[in-house]
Amino acid sequence: MLAIVSIVIRVSDLPAQMRFWKAALDYVERDPATDDWVVLQPRDADAPCVALDAHRSERVLPPRIHLDIYTDEPAAEILRLTELGAREIPWPDRPADADYVTMEDPEGNRFCVVDRPNWVGWRRPGR
Amino acid sequence: MLAIVSIVIRVSDLPAQMRFWKAALDYVERDPATDDWVVLQPRDADAPCVALDAHRSERVLPPRIHLDIYTDEPAAEILRLTELGAREIPWPDRPADADYVTMEDPEGNRFCVVDRPNWVGWRRPGR
Repeated sequence: MLAIVSIVIRVSDLPAQMRFWKAALDYVERDPATDDWVVLQPRDADAPCVALDAHRSERVLPPRIHLDIYTDEPAAEILRLTELGAREIPWPDRPADADYVTMEDPEGNRFCVVDRPNWVGWRRPGR
Repeated sequence: MLAIVSIVIRVSDLPAQMRFWKAALDYVERDPATDDWVVLQPRDADAPCVALDAHRSERVLPPRIHLDIYTDEPAAEILRLTELGAREIPWPDRPADADYVTMEDPEGNRFCVVDRPNWVGWRRPGR
């Protein structure tokens, strides 16, 4: 049995990226962070972890791998993420029916915020 | 509410990468694949999706983002993945206590197979 448990992102500034991703996803440290490594897990959902590895890696666009993050409240979440230090990537020819917006975290890692009104979230323990 | 639902990998050969990742993770198409896009989801687990986007992206090592894939049977799974077209990345100075092996999928996307004997997997619907 194989299971995707964690998405590992290489970072330059571990504390700053930790602050961003914890707040963005409502995640907490699985174990205390070391100088160069932390695994963040959902506070109360059975969802994938995000690990941060403080060893730099060159950014390339478009990225080989990115996250699609679903929400039922895109406008509010995009605003909240922007206040946390993310930014929306301009998309001049955005089709009217596009159901996602591309953003970057504070170190330029792109991800998509996907509008899914009926997404009910990961099953919480005990649900 | 935000939730990581899907990890998107850019690929050169969509059918080949689809075969690999479906077999590797026991995933199935969420909807029929198009010429350049497919979302793969677990057959019966409540786990993250893997989406494949047939628009090339340059590979850079080390990768900015990679997956940590847990298993309770690393030797058997590494062999199975190798037979599916993955390869193990040599690690001459591997510490005796390392709990993971680095591999590459057929297009060179690195991921780690992490030995977690007590990992019970994602909650299945109805569990």
